[in-house]
Amino acid sequence: MDEALKAKFTSIVGAKHALGASADQEPFLTEWRGRWTGKTPLVLRPGSTNEVAATVALANETKTAIVPQGGNTGLVGGQIPDESGSQIVISLGRMDKIRTIDPEGMTIIVDAGAVLQTVQDTAAAHDCLFPLSLASKGSATIGGNLSTNAGGVGALSYGVARDLCLGLEVVLPNGDVLDDLNILKKNNTGYDLRNLFIGAEGTLGIITGASLKLFPKPKALSTSFVALNSPTDALALLRKAQSVAGEALTAFELISSFGLEITVKHQTGMRNPLSADYPWYVLLEVSSLEGSDHGDGLMAGIVEGGFTDGLLQDGTIAASEAQRGQLWGLREGISESQRHEGGSLKHDISVPVAKLPAFMEEAEALVLDWEPAARICAFGHLGDGNLHYNITQPPGDDKAGFLARGNVFSPKLHDLVVAYGGSISAEHGIGQMKTRDLLTYKSPVAMALMQSIKATLDPNLIMNPGKVLSR
Amino acid sequence: MDEALKAKFTSIVGAKHALGASADQEPFLTEWRGRWTGKTPLVLRPGSTNEVAATVALANETKTAIVPQGGNTGLVGGQIPDESGSQIVISLGRMDKIRTIDPEGMTIIVDAGAVLQTVQDTAAAHDCLFPLSLASKGSATIGGNLSTNAGGVGALSYGVARDLCLGLEVVLPNGDVLDDLNILKKNNTGYDLRNLFIGAEGTLGIITGASLKLFPKPKALSTSFVALNSPTDALALLRKAQSVAGEALTAFELISSFGLEITVKHQTGMRNPLSADYPWYVLLEVSSLEGSDHGDGLMAGIVEGGFTDGLLQDGTIAASEAQRGQLWGLREGISESQRHEGGSLKHDISVPVAKLPAFMEEAEALVLDWEPAARICAFGHLGDGNLHYNITQPPGDDKAGFLARGNVFSPKLHDLVVAYGGSISAEHGIGQMKTRDLLTYKSPVAMALMQSIKATLDPNLIMNPGKVLSR
Repeated sequence: MDEALKAKFTSIVGAKHALGASADQEPFLTEWRGRWTGKTPLVLRPGSTNEVAATVALANETKTAIVPQGGNTGLVGGQIPDESGSQIVISLGRMDKIRTIDPEGMTIIVDAGAVLQTVQDTAAAHDCLFPLSLASKGSATIGGNLSTNAGGVGALSYGVARDLCLGLEVVLPNGDVLDDLNILKKNNTGYDLRNLFIGAEGTLGIITGASLKLFPKPKALSTSFVALNSPTDALALLRKAQSVAGEALTAFELISSFGLEITVKHQTGMRNPLSADYPWYVLLEVSSLEGSDHGDGLMAGIVEGGFTDGLLQDGTIAASEAQRGQLWGLREGISESQRHEGGSLKHDISVPVAKLPAFMEEAEALVLDWEPAARICAFGHLGDGNLHYNITQPPGDDKAGFLARGNVFSPKLHDLVVAYGGSISAEHGIGQMKTRDLLTYKSPVAMALMQSIKATLDPNLIMNPGKVLSR
Repeated sequence: MDEALKAKFTSIVGAKHALGASADQEPFLTEWRGRWTGKTPLVLRPGSTNEVAATVALANETKTAIVPQGGNTGLVGGQIPDESGSQIVISLGRMDKIRTIDPEGMTIIVDAGAVLQTVQDTAAAHDCLFPLSLASKGSATIGGNLSTNAGGVGALSYGVARDLCLGLEVVLPNGDVLDDLNILKKNNTGYDLRNLFIGAEGTLGIITGASLKLFPKPKALSTSFVALNSPTDALALLRKAQSVAGEALTAFELISSFGLEITVKHQTGMRNPLSADYPWYVLLEVSSLEGSDHGDGLMAGIVEGGFTDGLLQDGTIAASEAQRGQLWGLREGISESQRHEGGSLKHDISVPVAKLPAFMEEAEALVLDWEPAARICAFGHLGDGNLHYNITQPPGDDKAGFLARGNVFSPKLHDLVVAYGGSISAEHGIGQMKTRDLLTYKSPVAMALMQSIKATLDPNLIMNPGKVLSR
């Protein structure tokens, strides 16, 4: 990029917020696990929607590629520029304000750069709940959450990011601003433009603001950790729990014996709260608007019913907030603990919930046929049919070699997922990681439709090129 | 249309299902209230997705305009061809099968022509609930419900049609079939194509199948009819009810004294269940998964709290299914009863819920300033911020004259709605009725985006021309 153009971009956001030195750029150019890195002439940090619009208009005019970035917590490389050094990064981090909150109307309007945790805390301070929650909530931004249609642990009852959004403000690839921060529950005036940008990973425009739904804050949470013999029993328990508690069942997370074992081993202060080891565990949570008697009663009904039906082998219900934190720690520690066991092949998959047990049986056979000593670390949002189906290397195996062989094996697992009517990216998106998979698994009709929408909205192909679609 | 082309279309669906005689066509060419009529060379009734695809492909090749039709219950004329006699009607009524139901996975896959009532009944027979419900459920089809993103009385807790749909099968304007009948809760593989067709009113393609969410069937319903002094008190009651019952509050319908009066007057067997008349009423319902004790307890908590807070003037709780039906009859009878009072101006509007009382005060002043003897018949889904804000003519006034004057007045009411951040079509859509309003109230950026999407997907402009967009 020539210096004159750099100067033009810089003048839009101000010199202080246009980062050209590599030390300043570094935090924006490396994915947090180090899996993707890139180069850029400039990291721009606009302070307003108008500055974003002016930046995009200039980029469109000069055919300069743009990579939008939120909290840089994405897991598929969508937020990282390529190695060409020609793509500018637009970081939304300075646009982090809560614009308005309406606790009576149960809505909140925020800048796209607002951190998820801040939105949660603001809602809580007004006795409301913003239920989207995920491990990176302390740095992930709402704009990134919406651009990737984030899922997380609250989706079972409250839905994914898409379900929580009422309206958007978006800077389009031509620099126009689509201003639709409505807070209406019902609005049938033309095409649903909002959902086109949600999950588009910044390839159709830059989300700069969002109006979001809030929920009544639960009066009580009841959390239990139970042991089971099989995913089949876990599915039966899910059905029982949903018939007892309905939408009040707000979490149902599967944990394998291996997942628990490595978490207890590698995370400080963790222990198995049950008196023995079992093949599978479920962390489940009930949120009651009525109070702890009601919430505890629902949980007791679920757990007692589970024992009566022979589904449960053991179980404990958290008796305090501290115990509740301990139980959640067992779930949340799994991801990090895998690192200590060497390389892992990660698969963010979903299948229809009812088919999960059959899928898991077939997948296990497939994995062990490929690598008999591999350790399957399947865990996650069973209630959504969404598992992190990770495969950890055999102990003592060569990490790089395992991962290289794994890259050849993973398509077989994805084939199985698709044969089960499932998704090869349940909640993380496509980014730059899975563009080839998308071409493999998405129908030609769907791909052609996506390509034509992309070409219409972004004819100069400036918005996050190489992400989602191959161009 | 020349006979050769007619013969080609006819051969795709078979002579029996290609209606050319005007007596056969009649039910497909007149909106059920007689408000819109049109002409057509052929009403085609395809029996399969392949037949729809072949029909659309031929239409695209010959630049023949198509009007897709479900149960012909739409309220904005979207399903009726124009007067030119050149637009063919494709009625989905023969494609009315339930394809599969998975009660364990809580999903159902249906043909687009399946009647809403049939889908509800099929779900119920499997101990599940399909919660979309509206007055025309006995003839409205799922394809029409999705194409118009129908709302109805269950939206408060369960959401609108869009929220209930997991996947679609769509015949695109070029005759390609987008086959995405997935039943996944989480699936982040590219752009959200599904929501582009939901609410597009057949202008971007023809929905031929849908995968839908089911819910656990409530074990008990508790229904009450209460009297209040004002919309402000009704809003406060809504907040109380939601804090007590959360998502278990499944209906919250506002009825004005005028609405009750005309329903009691014109519907047989109806009476005011309370001992006196009051300015406003609310019909509210709680659905409990736990049983009648729980449901009745929640309702008692809401009603007792409402009296304690001085919000309620009077009230009754249905003690039997028959009484429950009576209370719902008071709500459902309003629309029909208006006919007996002469002409009515209808406005299907929404504003942010918290602003409803202020809006209603200002709207009333506006109406009475225009026509002091007009009778405001505002009722509906207060919990969604969605009112049918109808204005009934003064008694004895000339109907045609009132409606003619009303057509000049209505834009003023819509201006007020938009000033409140509201929608001029909350749940009925745009159809042919509100295309000019859309141009008035939608931002030029949004209109341009919609036009460009239309031009990309349907370059020959064959799909339901003149609906939603002006071309």
